[in-house]
Amino acid sequence: MHEEVGKAKRGIPAKEEDFNSWYPFIVEAADLVDKRYPIKGMDVWRPYGWKAMRLIDAITHREMELTDHEEVRFPLLIPANLLQQENRLVTLLKRAREEGVDPSELRLDEDEAGFEKEVYWVKNAGENELEVPMFLRPTSETAMYTMFPLWIRSHADLPLKIYQIVNTFRYETKQTRSFIRVREIHFFEAHTAHVDEAAANQQIAEDLEIVNRIMHDLCLPVIMAKRPIWDTFPGAWYTIGIDVVMPNGRTLQVASCHHYRDQWAREFGITYEGEQAEQKYCHQTTYGMSERLLGAVVGVHGDDHGLIMPPAIAPIQVVIVPVTKKDCADEIMAASEELRATLSGAGIRVKIDGRNIRPAKKYYDWEIKGVPLRLELGPRDLANGSAFAARRGGGKKALNLVDIVELVNLELAEISDWMRTRAATQHDDIIKTLPELSQGENGSWSINAEIDGASIYEIPFDGSDADAETIESLTGLSFLGDATEEYPEERSCCISGKKTKRRVLLSKSY
Amino acid sequence: MHEEVGKAKRGIPAKEEDFNSWYPFIVEAADLVDKRYPIKGMDVWRPYGWKAMRLIDAITHREMELTDHEEVRFPLLIPANLLQQENRLVTLLKRAREEGVDPSELRLDEDEAGFEKEVYWVKNAGENELEVPMFLRPTSETAMYTMFPLWIRSHADLPLKIYQIVNTFRYETKQTRSFIRVREIHFFEAHTAHVDEAAANQQIAEDLEIVNRIMHDLCLPVIMAKRPIWDTFPGAWYTIGIDVVMPNGRTLQVASCHHYRDQWAREFGITYEGEQAEQKYCHQTTYGMSERLLGAVVGVHGDDHGLIMPPAIAPIQVVIVPVTKKDCADEIMAASEELRATLSGAGIRVKIDGRNIRPAKKYYDWEIKGVPLRLELGPRDLANGSAFAARRGGGKKALNLVDIVELVNLELAEISDWMRTRAATQHDDIIKTLPELSQGENGSWSINAEIDGASIYEIPFDGSDADAETIESLTGLSFLGDATEEYPEERSCCISGKKTKRRVLLSKSY
Repeated sequence: MHEEVGKAKRGIPAKEEDFNSWYPFIVEAADLVDKRYPIKGMDVWRPYGWKAMRLIDAITHREMELTDHEEVRFPLLIPANLLQQENRLVTLLKRAREEGVDPSELRLDEDEAGFEKEVYWVKNAGENELEVPMFLRPTSETAMYTMFPLWIRSHADLPLKIYQIVNTFRYETKQTRSFIRVREIHFFEAHTAHVDEAAANQQIAEDLEIVNRIMHDLCLPVIMAKRPIWDTFPGAWYTIGIDVVMPNGRTLQVASCHHYRDQWAREFGITYEGEQAEQKYCHQTTYGMSERLLGAVVGVHGDDHGLIMPPAIAPIQVVIVPVTKKDCADEIMAASEELRATLSGAGIRVKIDGRNIRPAKKYYDWEIKGVPLRLELGPRDLANGSAFAARRGGGKKALNLVDIVELVNLELAEISDWMRTRAATQHDDIIKTLPELSQGENGSWSINAEIDGASIYEIPFDGSDADAETIESLTGLSFLGDATEEYPEERSCCISGKKTKRRVLLSKSY
Repeated sequence: MHEEVGKAKRGIPAKEEDFNSWYPFIVEAADLVDKRYPIKGMDVWRPYGWKAMRLIDAITHREMELTDHEEVRFPLLIPANLLQQENRLVTLLKRAREEGVDPSELRLDEDEAGFEKEVYWVKNAGENELEVPMFLRPTSETAMYTMFPLWIRSHADLPLKIYQIVNTFRYETKQTRSFIRVREIHFFEAHTAHVDEAAANQQIAEDLEIVNRIMHDLCLPVIMAKRPIWDTFPGAWYTIGIDVVMPNGRTLQVASCHHYRDQWAREFGITYEGEQAEQKYCHQTTYGMSERLLGAVVGVHGDDHGLIMPPAIAPIQVVIVPVTKKDCADEIMAASEELRATLSGAGIRVKIDGRNIRPAKKYYDWEIKGVPLRLELGPRDLANGSAFAARRGGGKKALNLVDIVELVNLELAEISDWMRTRAATQHDDIIKTLPELSQGENGSWSINAEIDGASIYEIPFDGSDADAETIESLTGLSFLGDATEEYPEERSCCISGKKTKRRVLLSKSY
């Protein structure tokens, strides 16, 4: 497909002043997606965007293989009765949590477990009404846990660690945004089953290490936070959310890990025979990520000229721009092709832009697409035995053609480092310590400064749920949860005054 | 996931006597899929089966990249009005074909274009009825051709060559069979747009070359046949079907290429500005393949011991079985691990079976899964500096450990060649020349021998549609179409007696 050039790509909104216009503009201008498909919230992935997503997926596959997860593929459609079963479980756990009792002590009324509201239904096929309605998977717990009892017999079958990368669906009623809030979601989900709670905890720890390695490749700093109990999916015992801080100060959950304990196993009959032949319930976890990873890459790294792609997932890592003059066009093109072949042979994703247009126009196009390194090759460069390198984020130098593979790899590594540092600085700048709270004589709390709408705040916190509610209503922000990285030494809780290392984050989230 | 061993895998039906029992047994016994998912015709892909499918996909991606196709990802859901548009087009073309007139001369009544019968409908989401009903893609013509006018402006944008590998859906009412007839289909579809009919013809030629390369890797001989007009999708001008002959004599269409001429372009307004600034309609093609490729691999290559996987797509190409004795277990395991690391480092997919069970049981398990090469490593082998190699299809020899990478690659290449030869022989044996037809005094035709239900037949044919109908009703077989490989010299048409090189195939198809 030829590149569309021209006016559609001009007039990029200023990112810092107007992130909410910049983002939707840039995802289309850089040819990541086309939003003109006739269903809202379902974009067409264009080749450039899909390639970037597939490169992220390749990193995920690599990590799954390193950690002995096996890839499966489950059907998209799930029979309605499994949703009822999930809803019954979730309603039960929610009530047990609210009433502080053991779920096994509760009974639900028939109509107490309502239908999930956010799924798409398939109730007709051809001209028939289906006997059993089905829904499009939002995630695959129920589909998978129906099969687990058939696969798990004894402790020798554990741990069971499987994953899939699939399309999932959510009947989204809020405003949609490419990658961030869509109705068909490109989704990764890992599901595991273990002998006990501790083994499942270890799995969550492994998941967080995987997240760290993936985020290193994407050059993205994250916040890992244990969600507050009132914001934890009731099916989970606890949830660790992984958030990227977007430039507008909003947090974007790009991944999450749930420890399910044996709650689902009890509902779905997932047991194993222990070493003494006794039947035990499995403990389970899930780990999910989605195309939001690409949304975070776009939002965090881009600038007023377009995207900046982390080298690990750049569909094109190096673009070669031949700078030809009439008298040496053939020679320059031949040298460019040789350079391309050399880099490509070394596993570098490289492209020649041989279009017959002004070099400045080419630079402009590849800047929008965020190609990390541009190599210009003109008669003078060739005479010097070098190519002229320009980094997307700034910085130019000549690279000796003799060592070009090594030098380009070094450039790409340095660009990655620069992107990590730059993103970390942005991230740290946005996180602030919450101004002090003070309590009036009537017992009501107030805050001693204004809350900046484009920041997120941290507090030492060891108060009650009611205290949390006070803080949320004072600040207009929500509890993101307890950061897995605590304060190194104890501080005083901002509301109860109790000594604590708990570092709680407050934000507005997507 | 641990391998399930034991009685579930015993008692494989005899393939030659009872292919229709052997096939469904083996797809589950070899852990390709699990059919116990609660929706009929929607299997769960288990890790081993999914890995094989992903390796087939990798070959497809390789071929698409070599031929400058770009990968996209379209939404699964398509608005109902696009199905109406397709049905109007197809009905119009069908009537035009029947009446022998130009489609532009026809008008359709409102109710003449019925709704496609085989799609799943999404008409509800959450508790709402959707304003615009949507359906799950059976293929993506309408979804894509809605976007093509936005992407194609001038001849410089052509050819447009895109593809995707996605889940598609068919509301299948016939009996389902894993990979062969399913309701959720793992599907590859390439869609192209060209300046004219000739350029689109060239695309079909390129597609057929791609098919040949893929089939070479899968070690599968195929029939390429231009479908008879009455069996051509009315949306297409012509269709080339690519069939594998299964051991029971049935043909399985594993791929197809359609030349759409400008029929869809006229309906969807897909035009380009020619070099003289005139608006012209694009000519289009599609090329589809599916998980049936894996079904063909299973059906053609397997035997009474299980699968035989072509090395190019074998999830495990080599299994190492350490043959340990008490006094040398550590040494043998260390040597096995070293061997694994050597082969793996050379890009060979290899696994050690270190389970604490009898070697014979291990051999049995890997035979069912069709691992092409087994390497046994015992004290005597180690003393000789060799590993003992057993090919899945028969043949044993010692391989020198010093040259093991080279020797294993040679074994795999020879196994592939053996599989190709074996499959070609099966294929040729099943294709027979149709016994002579003779015409009685009353003009009615009869056939001079019995039709063998497990064969397919070829005939020289240059008769009318009525002649074809006579042959179909006499033989109980269907016209598969005109083989792209014609007779080298002219023969007499079996019914009209006219001289012709046309080689027509008759079969029962899946």
